[in-house]
Amino acid sequence: MDIEIVDYMEMALNSAALAARRGEVPVGAVIFDSRLERVVANVSNQMIGRHDPTAHAEMLAIRAAGNMLGSERLVDCDLYVTLEPCPMCAAAISLARIRRIYFGAYDPKGGGVEYGARIFDQPTCHHKPEVYGGIKEEKSALLLKNFFEARR
Amino acid sequence: MDIEIVDYMEMALNSAALAARRGEVPVGAVIFDSRLERVVANVSNQMIGRHDPTAHAEMLAIRAAGNMLGSERLVDCDLYVTLEPCPMCAAAISLARIRRIYFGAYDPKGGGVEYGARIFDQPTCHHKPEVYGGIKEEKSALLLKNFFEARR
Repeated sequence: MDIEIVDYMEMALNSAALAARRGEVPVGAVIFDSRLERVVANVSNQMIGRHDPTAHAEMLAIRAAGNMLGSERLVDCDLYVTLEPCPMCAAAISLARIRRIYFGAYDPKGGGVEYGARIFDQPTCHHKPEVYGGIKEEKSALLLKNFFEARR
Repeated sequence: MDIEIVDYMEMALNSAALAARRGEVPVGAVIFDSRLERVVANVSNQMIGRHDPTAHAEMLAIRAAGNMLGSERLVDCDLYVTLEPCPMCAAAISLARIRRIYFGAYDPKGGGVEYGARIFDQPTCHHKPEVYGGIKEEKSALLLKNFFEARR
């Protein structure tokens, strides 16, 4: 597997681990701008801390990258996220025109890419990124499993 | 029709009209907390102004209300929005546990409630609000039509 892809997913996993320490569901996201060759966002879940149900890692990453780049379209950008995006995040990824997404664990209950609303497969979806799932899947899933087990 | 509902939709329409003056697609949203009997958010689209593809009126309203109420769940809240929510916003409404949504114009191309991904009808959707569409529909649609015609 491409070293770079694994590296960025490791970066997202580190952010996810920090979220767990704040009591947030451990999901992390990184956005890499392929034109600038720079990471333009590296964040994790903050729903509880911000009192914001929309503060999923992917949403915060898109907002941070848009702000950093001064554009509401992230056409040269790739998103790395440790969990399959939910329908909200998948739709936001489409609106942001993100080029590729790489995700870790699959999410049959909450996902919106391979499961549920399958946002990118809808005929009304205006932009479908390339999608690569299961990157560092075991590590991503273990982080979530340990988090939920510790809170029971 | 219930006077209150029309009043809150008028409030959202006024916000939508202000968005048009800033060059944003004119969509406005109001959140009313039925327990506090107060409007806790009244905003409109800011995607261009904020360089943020997620800055739809509904998303900004949910974030503002969560911040105002100090909670990521808006269980006693009703959302009034001038256009049928897209899949991103519909999924966010579900995550926020909003009680009822009232929307103006239907959106066959971009909507995610009655059209497209039909977020609330997915078996994996964990919270389905009551939905009332077509409130002040003509006025909502005319605002959008005039905006796009003027920009051609």
